[in-house]
Amino acid sequence: MSVHSAVAVPTALAAPAAPATAPAACDAPLPVLGDEVRVPLAGGGEALYAALDYAASAPALRRVWDEVAAYAPYYGSVHRGAGHLSQLSTELFESSRATVAGFLGCREDDQVVFTRSTTDSLNLLAAVLPPRTRVFVFETEHHAALLPWERRADTEVVYLDAPRSPGEAVGRLEAALATRAAGAPALVCVTGASNVTGEVWPVRQLAAAAHRHGARIVLDAAQLAPHRPVDLAAWDVDWVAFSGHKLYAPFGTGVLAGRADWLRSAEPYLAGGGASRSVARRAGGGVSVEWHTTAARHEAGSPNVIGAYAVAAACKALTEAGFEALVAREARLLARLRGGLAAIEGVRVLSLFGEDSDRVGVLSLTVEGWDSSALARALSAEYGIGVRDGLFCAHPLVRTLLDAPGDEPADCEAPPAPPADTADTVDTDTAADPAGRPLHALRVSFGAGTPDEHVERFLTAVGELVARVR
Amino acid sequence: MSVHSAVAVPTALAAPAAPATAPAACDAPLPVLGDEVRVPLAGGGEALYAALDYAASAPALRRVWDEVAAYAPYYGSVHRGAGHLSQLSTELFESSRATVAGFLGCREDDQVVFTRSTTDSLNLLAAVLPPRTRVFVFETEHHAALLPWERRADTEVVYLDAPRSPGEAVGRLEAALATRAAGAPALVCVTGASNVTGEVWPVRQLAAAAHRHGARIVLDAAQLAPHRPVDLAAWDVDWVAFSGHKLYAPFGTGVLAGRADWLRSAEPYLAGGGASRSVARRAGGGVSVEWHTTAARHEAGSPNVIGAYAVAAACKALTEAGFEALVAREARLLARLRGGLAAIEGVRVLSLFGEDSDRVGVLSLTVEGWDSSALARALSAEYGIGVRDGLFCAHPLVRTLLDAPGDEPADCEAPPAPPADTADTVDTDTAADPAGRPLHALRVSFGAGTPDEHVERFLTAVGELVARVR
Repeated sequence: MSVHSAVAVPTALAAPAAPATAPAACDAPLPVLGDEVRVPLAGGGEALYAALDYAASAPALRRVWDEVAAYAPYYGSVHRGAGHLSQLSTELFESSRATVAGFLGCREDDQVVFTRSTTDSLNLLAAVLPPRTRVFVFETEHHAALLPWERRADTEVVYLDAPRSPGEAVGRLEAALATRAAGAPALVCVTGASNVTGEVWPVRQLAAAAHRHGARIVLDAAQLAPHRPVDLAAWDVDWVAFSGHKLYAPFGTGVLAGRADWLRSAEPYLAGGGASRSVARRAGGGVSVEWHTTAARHEAGSPNVIGAYAVAAACKALTEAGFEALVAREARLLARLRGGLAAIEGVRVLSLFGEDSDRVGVLSLTVEGWDSSALARALSAEYGIGVRDGLFCAHPLVRTLLDAPGDEPADCEAPPAPPADTADTVDTDTAADPAGRPLHALRVSFGAGTPDEHVERFLTAVGELVARVR
Repeated sequence: MSVHSAVAVPTALAAPAAPATAPAACDAPLPVLGDEVRVPLAGGGEALYAALDYAASAPALRRVWDEVAAYAPYYGSVHRGAGHLSQLSTELFESSRATVAGFLGCREDDQVVFTRSTTDSLNLLAAVLPPRTRVFVFETEHHAALLPWERRADTEVVYLDAPRSPGEAVGRLEAALATRAAGAPALVCVTGASNVTGEVWPVRQLAAAAHRHGARIVLDAAQLAPHRPVDLAAWDVDWVAFSGHKLYAPFGTGVLAGRADWLRSAEPYLAGGGASRSVARRAGGGVSVEWHTTAARHEAGSPNVIGAYAVAAACKALTEAGFEALVAREARLLARLRGGLAAIEGVRVLSLFGEDSDRVGVLSLTVEGWDSSALARALSAEYGIGVRDGLFCAHPLVRTLLDAPGDEPADCEAPPAPPADTADTVDTDTAADPAGRPLHALRVSFGAGTPDEHVERFLTAVGELVARVR
């Protein structure tokens, strides 16, 4: 914990204790909360829960939880509180910001704004765009990156068709940027890694293309940051957004980090205390407000100090574990997963960029003879495996990948139907359109806390469930 | 924990264990995190920290922390996750909403939206106002309730001067409402209890006045909900906003609850997954979106499940402790505090409504011969007491109470100057305008976790510090 003031920092916070469990060896999973939770199985008995839905929300690293638990008794009001714990909490809040800046490779004059999620971060950026900005976004984006831009009447959004290779993505962006009038503000929004296919996008090349045409670029790193190091300065990316709850810190905090100028020039994201430096009644009626020009400008209200502290703890934990080891281990698990699935007849893994593309530990698939929802329920009820089915808040992308019609009403994130609790309620009907094409997919995703056994169990389960319908 | 589905709820969550400490007796403080934290004193030695800044952020109830800790291993992605922990987390998230609705006395068709804070809640409400709504707000409000309304060009804000009694507040509102054209949408925003004086506002009467004139009313209960029961239905209030971090649940979650119609008709607060039911490319370019009409409409992004669960745990804990006992105990402490301060020469307690007004445990004061900042620093450095100084994000109100000039640049919530670590750095200069009026105040605030000793220590400390400058 880097604390740079005269406030006495309790020993437990100044040098966080080593995790209760032994530090992870190079090829071992990092300890996470929930790794000892057992869930009931439909056929009787129970199983250790296999969390394979990291792309939605990852479990908390035990190290993150331990740091939050150590800090919680010292929690105090931040900013103008004069008491010791207020001073300490303010220090830790601001040093958390510095830790996140380091984790992201921020430039010295970048701002790190704490938000509540990637969705919130991108809505914030949409709100601070200069008037009449043109935004370029691929239709393949998650809704959080696809939808915020049209909210302002003066923003024009150019949707780009799904590219079929990283090179085509760069080419398609270049072509689109070339059509615009020089000088007007422009923003490119692109994902670092797809939340559907796990495929990694050519961020550096897209950033270079954007800048060649005088546009700026924001990176949706919700799925990238938990798996790969991010380096804003080296990649020459203007902003990055990510979520704590996918980065092993599920305490309601996300981040928008990057160039200060647009953030500083725009109206505050929320109006209220914390963002306002001074407020006075005007003689002629109304109030006049002087707003902060720091990150506080967009953080009105009491900040989520525990959430910010947890995100910083996760950044430190991943940095100290070493991305090299994490990436190598994940690549090994992913190769095993893909190899195992390739050996099961009727399984189709979805891909935009093809067999050889670089991927993180996120993979979507369909299985002939199984509706994805029924398959997901069976994996849970019979094997204690947690995955996800649907269109993953990326409806246009999944429909493109499935070659499915676009007018299918699909519920993105509404509460699901009650789970199947007995094997005999599992529905193996195929939810498909009249042409036999599936309308949903199943997604399996994992990360730093995933033991090999979860992947093996998933492969065994899919093999057995496929055999059942043959 | 009321869970109403087939998901197997772990015993620890279904029936939360009794707090480690014995349940509070009627007149004892509720156990809170941090009640055993010792802080260093400038003169050497240390003291148990006396958190007297509850109005900014209250410590977590131990019961809330215990429930969060019991749940954390079961945390999973909510909504469409098919796994057991996803189903469980979705259940707990939705049952938390129901718990909060019960705590607030919501009507059956009210919506409970989880936000990040009161500030966020009121900004959300400002965003969903029907076009050309006229908003009526007293200048005495916290900036979170004062500033969100002017953000939309089509909203007209009517600022009402500070009333000097609850009756005058009602009369002033009636008079203002009477001037408006019938039929056009109107909203009254009012605090339940002042964050500066602790004085309780006549919410029922203001609601009745609003409704007599066809206006709606939103209650800023940030300072009321931790101290008094709130009852939307009985009070006939349309919406209420509060913050978890002032309600002993500092995990980044706030609430806006109330009438569904305006919430349902407006554009979603954030654009992204969770709020979107279906998204499709349009044939002619662009995307078409179908949005949810439930609370999810305004909760885009993965929700802060732990934060919502913590708020619900706090609602349950306060309900079970019994507001009658909490209110009686707080009244006793407040009487002791006010009596003790009255006996110290040079202390002036700020009040809008006068000596006999109903108050919660929040009180601001000035001390002749002491700058409030210096006094706050001395209380921390020499007595281990955490209070707050400044204008408390309610600049117009505090200036009115101090009879101070309105053009004083005052930093509401910026990080404070480094704390005084030795007694001899304590500055006893008076920060006052040329007429000798103080420009800031000191605020002391407490709640369900405050032992008598903190109040006694505060009185002793103020007495000694006042004596030093006489």
